[in-house]
Amino acid sequence: MELKSFSSCSVSTSEVAHVGRSYSTLISSFRHKVGVRFSTHFQCRRGLFLTTYCASDNTYLTDKAVISSVGQDNFAAETSSHRINGTNGSISRFYSTNLKLLDAFDDEYGGVVVHPDRLPSNPYTFASVLRLSLSQWKKMGKKGIWLKLPLDQSDLVPIAVKEGFQYHHAEPGYVMLTYWIPEGPSMLPANASHQVGVGGFVINDNNEVLVVQERHCSPTTLGLWKIPTGFILEAEEIYTGAVREVKEETGIDTEFVEVIAFRHAHNVAFEKSDLFFICMLRPLSSKIIVDDLEIAAAKWMPLVDFVEQPLIQEDSMFKKIVDIFIARLGKRYCGLSTHQVVSKFDGMVSSLYYNVIDNADNNCVGK
Amino acid sequence: MELKSFSSCSVSTSEVAHVGRSYSTLISSFRHKVGVRFSTHFQCRRGLFLTTYCASDNTYLTDKAVISSVGQDNFAAETSSHRINGTNGSISRFYSTNLKLLDAFDDEYGGVVVHPDRLPSNPYTFASVLRLSLSQWKKMGKKGIWLKLPLDQSDLVPIAVKEGFQYHHAEPGYVMLTYWIPEGPSMLPANASHQVGVGGFVINDNNEVLVVQERHCSPTTLGLWKIPTGFILEAEEIYTGAVREVKEETGIDTEFVEVIAFRHAHNVAFEKSDLFFICMLRPLSSKIIVDDLEIAAAKWMPLVDFVEQPLIQEDSMFKKIVDIFIARLGKRYCGLSTHQVVSKFDGMVSSLYYNVIDNADNNCVGK
Repeated sequence: MELKSFSSCSVSTSEVAHVGRSYSTLISSFRHKVGVRFSTHFQCRRGLFLTTYCASDNTYLTDKAVISSVGQDNFAAETSSHRINGTNGSISRFYSTNLKLLDAFDDEYGGVVVHPDRLPSNPYTFASVLRLSLSQWKKMGKKGIWLKLPLDQSDLVPIAVKEGFQYHHAEPGYVMLTYWIPEGPSMLPANASHQVGVGGFVINDNNEVLVVQERHCSPTTLGLWKIPTGFILEAEEIYTGAVREVKEETGIDTEFVEVIAFRHAHNVAFEKSDLFFICMLRPLSSKIIVDDLEIAAAKWMPLVDFVEQPLIQEDSMFKKIVDIFIARLGKRYCGLSTHQVVSKFDGMVSSLYYNVIDNADNNCVGK
Repeated sequence: MELKSFSSCSVSTSEVAHVGRSYSTLISSFRHKVGVRFSTHFQCRRGLFLTTYCASDNTYLTDKAVISSVGQDNFAAETSSHRINGTNGSISRFYSTNLKLLDAFDDEYGGVVVHPDRLPSNPYTFASVLRLSLSQWKKMGKKGIWLKLPLDQSDLVPIAVKEGFQYHHAEPGYVMLTYWIPEGPSMLPANASHQVGVGGFVINDNNEVLVVQERHCSPTTLGLWKIPTGFILEAEEIYTGAVREVKEETGIDTEFVEVIAFRHAHNVAFEKSDLFFICMLRPLSSKIIVDDLEIAAAKWMPLVDFVEQPLIQEDSMFKKIVDIFIARLGKRYCGLSTHQVVSKFDGMVSSLYYNVIDNADNNCVGK
C-alpha cells in the first residue's frame, strides 16, 4: 500500500450550498439561509493518498488503509476497507492508482460541497475516491453532499448515481447531483421552479398601442394583434426585460413605468410554473423596425381597434387584462413601480416592486 | 444483416417540447408557443431493425443498411454507414443486437422528443441507435432533439454527451439533454430561472403581528422577530403557499388578502434568481403551535414593538417593507388581489394578480 499525505490547499469557488428547505428572508435576511454563496477562499480537506486495485470481477477494491487526520475533524486513526462497484463492462486486468478523498469543503449547514474543478479524471479513481469520501462523510455526520459534474466529465455521472446520488439540477455545461446522508427524506432545497416572462404595453400620445403578429402563433390566435412578450434573460430585471423585448421585436425605445398585473400558471414547461409580468411602458421613439425572425408584422394600432378584436372580447382573461390597461390609462388604477433597495445584512442590491404609498413616491397618477 | 420492420404504435406522454426562445403569451396565447405539452396520443416512428456489430477497437460499427420508409417522411431508399464511438474501456468481443431508430415523436416546432420510457436498456444498443437516429434527424432537417434519461439509465448519459448532447435541466429522477441540429446557436428555451418565496404578514384585531424567530438564522439577525416565510411548493399558488407556511411555522390559520409587494433578486441560489412575494393575510385563529424543527419561538407581538426593532429601523429595505405594511393597515395602500382566470385558447386556469380597478372588485379599502 502506498501512502502519501497531501497538504491543505485553498480553493476559490462561487459554488452554492444549501441545506434545509426553510427560506429565511424578510425581517431576518433576504438572503436564503439555505443558499449561501461561497465566493471566497476555502480550505479544502487534507487527505491521504491510498493505493487502489481494480479486480477483474468488475469490482474495485481499495487496500486496507490507515486513515488519519482527514479534514479538520482530526479523525482518530482507524482501519477501513472499501469495495467500490465498477460501472463498465468486463475488465481484463488489474490496475492501481493513487487515491485520496475528493477535494471538498464544508458548507455551513453540515453539508459538503465537492470541488468541481478538482475531480479525478479517471473514472476508476473517481469511483474509488467517491466511495471512500462518502464513507468518511457518513462517519463525520455530514448531511447533504453536493457534487457538480462538468459536461466533459459525464462519464462520472453513472458512477455517482450507482453510489446513490440523485440529480438536483443541470445547466448546459454541468449536472449537479446530491446525496442526503441522514435518515429520513432529503431536506435539501428544490431547484428553480419558475420561468419568468414579461409583456410590454406601450401606448403613444395618439392612443395607439404597439402591437405585433408573431411568425409562429397557434391557429387559435391567427390574426391577433398582441403586445410584445418574451422571457427575461438570466439575472435580468423585469423592467429591463420588458424594455428589451419591445426593442427587439419592434425597434421601439421605451422606459418602464409599472408592473400593472401578473399571472401565475403551472405545469407550463417541463412541469415548471410560469410567472408573467404585464408591464406598462412609455414610448421614447415611434419608428417601427420589425424583427423578421420572430415577428411577422408590427404596428401602432388605435386602442379602440386593439380592444375590439374578437379574440380579446371573447376571452375572459384577455378582456380582464385589457380592462386593466384601460383603467390604468384612465388613472383609475395604479400598478407596482420598482425601487432599488439594499439590505445591510447581505449587501445585495435588489428590486422591490410596490404601489404608491405616499405623495412623494407617486409615479402613477401623474403619468 | 438482419432486417425487420416494426409497425407504427401510439404512445401517451406528458412530455414537453420547446423550440424557439420567444414567449407567445398574452393577447396571443398565455401558453408558451415554445412549451406545448403533448398529453394526447402520438404516433411514434415506424422504423427498421438493423443488426449492429461492436468492433474490438472500442468502436461500434453498424452494418451498411438499407433504410426505407422511416417515420412519416417516407425517406427514399438509401445506403448508410454509421460508426458510433464507444464510451467504455476495451471491449474484447464482437456482439450483435437488433437496432432501430429511437422511439420518438415530432414536436410542432420542427424538433423531436425521444420517448423516455422506450430507451434501449443496453448502452451499446443505445449508442448505435442514437447515432443512427441523429443521422436520420439531420437528413430530415429536424431542429431541437429532446432526450430525457431516467436516473436508472444514467449509464446512457456519457454516451449522449459523446454524441454532442448538452444538459438542459434535471429533476431528482431524470436529466434532460438536448441537441440543436441547425447551424448557429441553439434556439431552445432555457430551463427554469427562478425560485419563488412567500412571506405572510398577519396582524390581529389587537394590532399584534405574528412573528417568529428561526432556529438557524444568521448571526446578523440574531434576536430578530420576523414574519413567517418559505418557498412555495411545486405548482403551488402564491396565496396558498403563504397560508401554508404560516400554518406550518406557527399553527395559525389565515386567509389570503393581497400581495402587497414583491422583491426580485439575482444570483441567489445556483446562480438563479429569486422572487419573493410579501403577502397580507387575515388571521382565523389565535393559538400558536410552534414548528420545533425550523422555529425557535413564535408569538403575537405588538405592532409598535415589531416596527421598533433596531434591526428593522437600521435597514433601509426592511424599513421600507414595514412602511408598506403600515400604509396598508392605514388603508393608504392597496396591493394585488388574486383572481382565477381561464383562457379559452389553452383552457388553463391560472391566477391573475391585480389591483382594485372598480368598486365591485374592491377588496382593499374595506378590509
